[in-house]
Amino acid sequence: MRVINLKSPGGLDQLKLHEVEGPGEPGPGEICVRLHASSLNFHDYIVASGKSPTEEGRIPMADGAGVVEAVGKGVTEFATGDHVVSTFFPHWLDGPARVADFKTVPGDGVDGYAREQVVRPAHWFTHAPEGYTHAEAATLTTAGLTAWRALVVDGGLKAGDTVLTLGTGGVSIFALQLAKAMGARVISTSSTEEKIARLKALGADHTINYREEPEWGKKVQALTSGRGADHVIEVGGPGTLPQSIDAVAIAGHISLIGVLTGRGGDIPTSKLMAKQARLQGLIVGSRRHQVEMIRALEITGLKPVIDSSFSLDRIADAFRHQESGKHFGKICLEF
Amino acid sequence: MRVINLKSPGGLDQLKLHEVEGPGEPGPGEICVRLHASSLNFHDYIVASGKSPTEEGRIPMADGAGVVEAVGKGVTEFATGDHVVSTFFPHWLDGPARVADFKTVPGDGVDGYAREQVVRPAHWFTHAPEGYTHAEAATLTTAGLTAWRALVVDGGLKAGDTVLTLGTGGVSIFALQLAKAMGARVISTSSTEEKIARLKALGADHTINYREEPEWGKKVQALTSGRGADHVIEVGGPGTLPQSIDAVAIAGHISLIGVLTGRGGDIPTSKLMAKQARLQGLIVGSRRHQVEMIRALEITGLKPVIDSSFSLDRIADAFRHQESGKHFGKICLEF
Amino acid sequence: MRVINLKSPGGLDQLKLHEVEGPGEPGPGEICVRLHASSLNFHDYIVASGKSPTEEGRIPMADGAGVVEAVGKGVTEFATGDHVVSTFFPHWLDGPARVADFKTVPGDGVDGYAREQVVRPAHWFTHAPEGYTHAEAATLTTAGLTAWRALVVDGGLKAGDTVLTLGTGGVSIFALQLAKAMGARVISTSSTEEKIARLKALGADHTINYREEPEWGKKVQALTSGRGADHVIEVGGPGTLPQSIDAVAIAGHISLIGVLTGRGGDIPTSKLMAKQARLQGLIVGSRRHQVEMIRALEITGLKPVIDSSFSLDRIADAFRHQESGKHFGKICLEF
Amino acid sequence: MRVINLKSPGGLDQLKLHEVEGPGEPGPGEICVRLHASSLNFHDYIVASGKSPTEEGRIPMADGAGVVEAVGKGVTEFATGDHVVSTFFPHWLDGPARVADFKTVPGDGVDGYAREQVVRPAHWFTHAPEGYTHAEAATLTTAGLTAWRALVVDGGLKAGDTVLTLGTGGVSIFALQLAKAMGARVISTSSTEEKIARLKALGADHTINYREEPEWGKKVQALTSGRGADHVIEVGGPGTLPQSIDAVAIAGHISLIGVLTGRGGDIPTSKLMAKQARLQGLIVGSRRHQVEMIRALEITGLKPVIDSSFSLDRIADAFRHQESGKHFGKICLEF
Repeated sequence: MRVINLKSPGGLDQLKLHEVEGPGEPGPGEICVRLHASSLNFHDYIVASGKSPTEEGRIPMADGAGVVEAVGKGVTEFATGDHVVSTFFPHWLDGPARVADFKTVPGDGVDGYAREQVVRPAHWFTHAPEGYTHAEAATLTTAGLTAWRALVVDGGLKAGDTVLTLGTGGVSIFALQLAKAMGARVISTSSTEEKIARLKALGADHTINYREEPEWGKKVQALTSGRGADHVIEVGGPGTLPQSIDAVAIAGHISLIGVLTGRGGDIPTSKLMAKQARLQGLIVGSRRHQVEMIRALEITGLKPVIDSSFSLDRIADAFRHQESGKHFGKICLEF
Repeated sequence: MRVINLKSPGGLDQLKLHEVEGPGEPGPGEICVRLHASSLNFHDYIVASGKSPTEEGRIPMADGAGVVEAVGKGVTEFATGDHVVSTFFPHWLDGPARVADFKTVPGDGVDGYAREQVVRPAHWFTHAPEGYTHAEAATLTTAGLTAWRALVVDGGLKAGDTVLTLGTGGVSIFALQLAKAMGARVISTSSTEEKIARLKALGADHTINYREEPEWGKKVQALTSGRGADHVIEVGGPGTLPQSIDAVAIAGHISLIGVLTGRGGDIPTSKLMAKQARLQGLIVGSRRHQVEMIRALEITGLKPVIDSSFSLDRIADAFRHQESGKHFGKICLEF
Repeated sequence: MRVINLKSPGGLDQLKLHEVEGPGEPGPGEICVRLHASSLNFHDYIVASGKSPTEEGRIPMADGAGVVEAVGKGVTEFATGDHVVSTFFPHWLDGPARVADFKTVPGDGVDGYAREQVVRPAHWFTHAPEGYTHAEAATLTTAGLTAWRALVVDGGLKAGDTVLTLGTGGVSIFALQLAKAMGARVISTSSTEEKIARLKALGADHTINYREEPEWGKKVQALTSGRGADHVIEVGGPGTLPQSIDAVAIAGHISLIGVLTGRGGDIPTSKLMAKQARLQGLIVGSRRHQVEMIRALEITGLKPVIDSSFSLDRIADAFRHQESGKHFGKICLEF
Repeated sequence: MRVINLKSPGGLDQLKLHEVEGPGEPGPGEICVRLHASSLNFHDYIVASGKSPTEEGRIPMADGAGVVEAVGKGVTEFATGDHVVSTFFPHWLDGPARVADFKTVPGDGVDGYAREQVVRPAHWFTHAPEGYTHAEAATLTTAGLTAWRALVVDGGLKAGDTVLTLGTGGVSIFALQLAKAMGARVISTSSTEEKIARLKALGADHTINYREEPEWGKKVQALTSGRGADHVIEVGGPGTLPQSIDAVAIAGHISLIGVLTGRGGDIPTSKLMAKQARLQGLIVGSRRHQVEMIRALEITGLKPVIDSSFSLDRIADAFRHQESGKHFGKICLEF
């Protein structure tokens, strides 16, 4: 089988394709999956670009989707031929968050899914949504579940709530789609009129060009008659958080997801206090969350927006496209 | 103005139309509303039919929608010309339930809205959803808010959940529509193929003819691969509750709304216990709940299903139509 | 080692002591526990008395506490010499309830802990609270965790809430103690003045002799100035539930735990609806719940009330004492 | 009656005592209260010191406790002679937070309680806890309710949780006491061994001298075997928040209360994200919260810690004592 290994010291040029032996037969409780797709996230980029060092030869990519090829003894949840998708935290099955690092995350602390075959315990995967391509399914592990966790698990999103999304990355687009599928009002920001047109086409009720409106927090207040956004999908980090705090409603909820603009910065804590708002940190979610999200995707028919697809050997090109910031939705690998 | 009074000892023949003086000018904090519509609920029927005795001459009907004609001193929430709809519990504005009777409910403990004009404190009404007719708005006070409370407030409904609705009364139809607008799967029961066709047209994913399937609890389990319904909109009461308990999922939620089949009965409590399920009593909801529901209706575009409409003087005929059980959705009065 | 087996067709006379081989070495992920204590619950009685048939030779008792004798490969949570206590649902580790039967419960669907040694996966046990005897620890698996689940997990108990407990069984006494340790007001019922004196000594703020006050629901209302109980620990089932519904506060919470008075009965559902109260079924809880409860027991210093203790060979006598209903708190086995 | 007015431009020297006419009779829905005590909070200091400008002649102090002297028409909740205590947000009666400023807060946006008599709508006050002195009751309006809101309302505190408090101000001491009354483990920081001894005497399970342990976040991790604090009562603001983030548990809760160290600053947002923790802004709470807290105080017997008491004319001295930072618990005014 083919596999991508990341050589020291990391960097997109260090993503090397190899031919290796297949993983063999699944043991008790395990499944063998023929992987067909992955998708790129900011976290994968941090690893691949060498900004977060990993073990020599690490196989990157947290997202993996494919077909069950063989089933070990005692596995009842899956059968040969089932379409499956990987989970971000293989050991966080249910209940409240119990992890604060990436030591158990495929493609970071352990080998990931930039490979054609893998044998893993069955609970490292869930069923893929019916009717999804492998590329579509692969977008769920990280980006899809992050948006679901933020809005549904942490936010308790209800119809009529106002959701603010920032930019056109995978999490933001997924959040826009989910929010619309659940009857919410969505305000989305972007930097170009072309992307804004696409946000509108996906159902955004209001859009803001943040280059033209650098004080977009106030704009959100104006668009909501002074109520503000009930939920902010904050993927930017310290660079955008002050505006997000301006945008949020009293008693509202900001999902702190992103580190795009850095790992810390100057935050107006007294405004957050006065708003009586909640800044909720999160990293993806549990296996239960994924199963529940997939149930929602099947019944709503929601499909992720795929920007582009690359073959496995072009993984570095895929990351370079991600670096360019020109994408709208998810960049995938298919193999 | 015209008004309906209920004479002793109650009964549909005792609903009498009178011409009386208008209510005069609103005092401080009050508004004068020209009512144009009401809608019928089981609770209104209990009052009108004399099964729940009220004060001599009581003006029936909890639901009232119309136009603000005049605004008293200090009222800032409403202006003349605003379309408004009444609230079920005029004194329950926010927070957890605080009432267990109907002493403060218009059309029962106090005079209701089968009248052309009324002066009341402003907080007895909320804005009607934009684009709603008065008849549509009038369906929200009791039936609409009951469905919202059950699914959204008590149930924390999320996309992908399975909702079971019983029959084709106003609450059940509204719950079906809300659940679909929020991305849930809906199973609906009815007794005729004609009604079942209409349930499907409204988006029901599965339907059950309960005459053909008297053990519809098992049928719900079968339709959900043994998971059961996450939420049951239990409008039937003791006669249907045993089947609802069979239908509900482990850790699921049954909204105990109805007394259609009586005020008590033989309930398999050990099954409810073993299912680790929640049987949640409720009566409508608070003013805050209504405001939040209306926000959801505006953004989703959901409109209530109106079965038929009667003029104010034909109120007894409207109740007789309700008695027949032939309706699908809401029966309204327009005037 | 010594072990108790339950012979067909069940019944206290069919509890037979045997000498058998020990369980051998723990495999990977397993621990070997030298059990020293168990405790009796109504559920164990149902099994032992043959009212709920089990496999021939079943080893009864869900509760088991003792010392880790050996640790299998890969076990990091426990070390030799650790004091441990069993969990009720060995496969429900975290998250919402996922079981509605007793197929996986030790002492019912699988062999339990009326034995001197056992080898099981490590996650079938948790650490016992520091400073607990084995008999004290053994009371936690079923009775302790049921009370904790009802008040803390399901009820979100807060200081100042009013809790109603019924009788002097293990769950009720534990709930009384927990409620007091968390700053709640407790009203407890019993049938004799002697038991009432002991309830008061444990901190009950009010007591009701239900023989003298058969309408104890009204008495609870009177004792709470008409507010009612925020939480009712309903261990009686259909025979007591109508009074519990009278006793509960508006928007209050009744934990439906018991089947002492039968598996179903005539329930005033319309009162439950009007009270807008929640009837929450439950069976014990998850492993996470147990870990969290034990943390609470250690910090509060709360110790369970042990009525009496029997040796393993006197298990039938222990159950006969339970049958008599004369106990106050937990009946234990020590060996 | 005597009253304190704050003259322009503010500052402790501008707190002037005057003799003025009494407030007269209460109108419908109002009560007249003979105030006997107030207590000092950081927010009162900000106003009194002129750092937050108010209207000329503003009567300061949000906290007020005393005796009902007269009751207006229609008031049923209070009778002459009742002991009462003021609420922080007179218009936030119930439900989620609805305010993000101090425009309606007595002693800031409107006149407060540094006066001997006041006539206000009845719902501006609640009953004081039985057995409380007026000075004790006065500590509840701001400091007491802030601690309750943080731990109980926002935090859902349960027995066994670990609570971290910072310093010895009124909110922190109250949080320590509440947490112990509800069965939690408490870790408290302070800067002097004398204060640390007093924290221990109040029940703190662990103490940290933050002068000796500037990295007290790590110390909290060590004291909790690496779990961290479930709840942090963060009264310091940006200067202490980085350590609080180090101290908090995965999925834990930081109550963002304070601005003692400024209105914003450099915050390690990526750590908050990785911890999957919640930073929850809050300002005091609703009238319902106060009523529920008072129920808890009555049943637990908890009494606030009063550092010192000043007469009304010595209000400036009281604030100077607050400025010194030497207090432990609440500084009161009694008159």
